[in-house]
Formats: sequence, C-alpha cells, structure tokens
Amino acid sequence: MTERVPQQERSRITREGLLRAAVDVLAEQGWSAATVATVAARAGVSRGAAQHHFPTREALVTATLEQIFADLTEVASSATATATATGEGDRVAAVVHRAVGIYTGKEFKAALQVWAAAASDPALRELILPLEAKFARAAHRMTVEALGHSDDQAHIHRIAQLTLDLARGLGLADTLSDDSTRRAQVVATYIDLVRSALGE
Amino acid sequence: MTERVPQQERSRITREGLLRAAVDVLAEQGWSAATVATVAARAGVSRGAAQHHFPTREALVTATLEQIFADLTEVASSATATATATGEGDRVAAVVHRAVGIYTGKEFKAALQVWAAAASDPALRELILPLEAKFARAAHRMTVEALGHSDDQAHIHRIAQLTLDLARGLGLADTLSDDSTRRAQVVATYIDLVRSALGE
Repeated sequence: MTERVPQQERSRITREGLLRAAVDVLAEQGWSAATVATVAARAGVSRGAAQHHFPTREALVTATLEQIFADLTEVASSATATATATGEGDRVAAVVHRAVGIYTGKEFKAALQVWAAAASDPALRELILPLEAKFARAAHRMTVEALGHSDDQAHIHRIAQLTLDLARGLGLADTLSDDSTRRAQVVATYIDLVRSALGE
Repeated sequence: MTERVPQQERSRITREGLLRAAVDVLAEQGWSAATVATVAARAGVSRGAAQHHFPTREALVTATLEQIFADLTEVASSATATATATGEGDRVAAVVHRAVGIYTGKEFKAALQVWAAAASDPALRELILPLEAKFARAAHRMTVEALGHSDDQAHIHRIAQLTLDLARGLGLADTLSDDSTRRAQVVATYIDLVRSALGE
C-alpha cells in the first residue's frame, strides 16, 4: 500500500514552502521581486496553487511577516530559556547577544523590505502595523523576563527597550555589508553599560 | 534693465531643486516612485532639463544620497558646536539628542528607501557604500568630539558608535508610526547610562 500524504497535510507543506521562499526572495531580491509568481517559482509550486493560498501579494506578504515574527519570537523565547539557565554574570551578555541575533538574520532583512515598502504604502502599513506591534510586545516581554527582576522593575523595562532599539540599529547597519567585527565591539561596550546600570 | 540670473546659477538652482524633490519623493512615495521623470515633475522641471543633470536614476539617487549626507553632517556639526558650548552635565544629553535627530528626520526616511533598494541591487550597493562609509566616519568623528576627552579615549570612541547605532534603531522604529513618546523614555534611559559610564 502506498503511503499517502493527506490533502490537508500537503496543503500545509505547500503553504510553509511558499512562506520560506517569500523570506528568501525578500531578503535576497528585495521588495519589487516579491510577487506571488516569483515566490511560487522559487518554492517550486505552480502559480495556481500559490494563488489558492495567497490570492494577492498583500496576503502573501502579510502571512510572510506573521511567519517571520513567529520564528523570531521562538528564537527570542529559547534565548530567554538560555539566559535564565546561565549565571547572573552571563545573563546580560546572553540577553543582548540574542536581541542582536534577532535583528541580524535573514528574517530581519526580509522584514526590512516590507517595512520600507510600507513606509510609502498606507494600505500595506495598516496591514503590518498590528503584526509589528504584537511582535514588539512579545520581544519586549521576553527581554524583560530574561533580564530578571530588580527593585526598580520600570528600569528593567526601559533597559529592555533600549536593548531592542540598539539591536535594530545594528541590524540596519548589517544590511549592506558584513558589520560583525565592528558590531562585536559595540555590543561589548553596551553589555558593560547595562551591567553597571543593573549593579552587576 | 532686467536682472538676469546667470546660466551657471540657474543650473545650480535647478539641480538643488531636483535633489530636494528627490528627498521628498523617496521619503513620501518610496523607492519605486523615485524615477527621474517623477522627481522632475515634483520639482517643476522639464524631464529634459532633469536628464541633463541626471541622465540615469542611479545618478539622481547617488547625488541625492550625497546631498542627504552633506545636510546631516551639517546638522551634526552644529550639534557639536551646541554640545561644546553647554556645560559638562548637559553635554551627553545634547550629543544623544542630536544623534537621534539625525536619524528621525525626512532625510533618514529617504535614505532608508535607497538602503533597502541597495540590499538587493549589487550595482547600487557599490555606488552607495563609499558614501555611507564617508558619512559614518564624519558622524562618528563629530560625536566623539562632542562627547569630549577622557583618559580612556577608546572608550569614548565606542560610546560614540553605540550612540549612533541606537539612534539608527530609533530612526527605523519611527518610519511606520510616530514613536516620539516611547523614544523619549528610551533616550532618557540611555543618557543616564552614558553619564554613569563617563563618570558624570
């Protein structure tokens, strides 16, 4: 008897393949290339099948951004576990490195393309702002948890925001050329500042 | 006798008008809109006259980025003067506010469009990387000068880089919606961290 993949399962696999292909196309070829047809070709899926999942470019791009944010939240979540498992001294370093990791990968480069396009497209902006806000809240919450408790919890909240803002800036500096050497120094300086601020 | 504007002067005015229009088009309508024809229309210049100055889109975009960086360097330069004129205690705040100012204006939003386009266009990337590097050096040098001297000058250099990276991240957070309220808190937290780090 031949093993058959149920229809529902095949549909899920096709959808995931399209979303992965969309991340690759956005990160490597940019916004203008990221059409349903190009992404379908990259995923090895027929245009008709792709349009069944994503009738419009907006539907594809929105779902891709949701997938990116879900993936990044998972990365941040495992970072929280790692940071919590390590000693007090390494905790700040672990939190900062993971925040920077979120914004220096392929996913951020893909999201940046959508971001830039949305800056001049009000309809796209309305679609992605809630996704962006949800992700920002999740990233902030996990960074706060990973930094641990303090007598001044509001201070921890602000340090978490600062960390994510710095990470975003470092991510942007990495989009046109490999900035990893310079970034390592900046990150080390920042870790020292945060350790002092937290009295560690 | 009618006053006549010399040909050379008129040419300079036309060129400047085109560059200003290009910044507006990039910041408001995005990369795909920023063609020589659209920018010429926005500047109220004939397409032929525009093409005399900028035969290609690449020539227009490169010159626009040069103009943006020159304008931002001028802003940063006056910031240096302001910071130097103020007392030691206000110096850090002045430096940080001006760095953030650089990345939260219309010019940064326009540059971000070119940046995003260059991420997937190797030829454009080669054109803008040297401009970007030159601007980064100028911004860094002026931030270092504004922060003042210390026994550990390498530390000042790293704080200057950190400040500009944070400012870039805050700029990116401001592209889709007005982030000024949240930003003010993050900036205040960062100023406290830097003051502590510099022993002020």
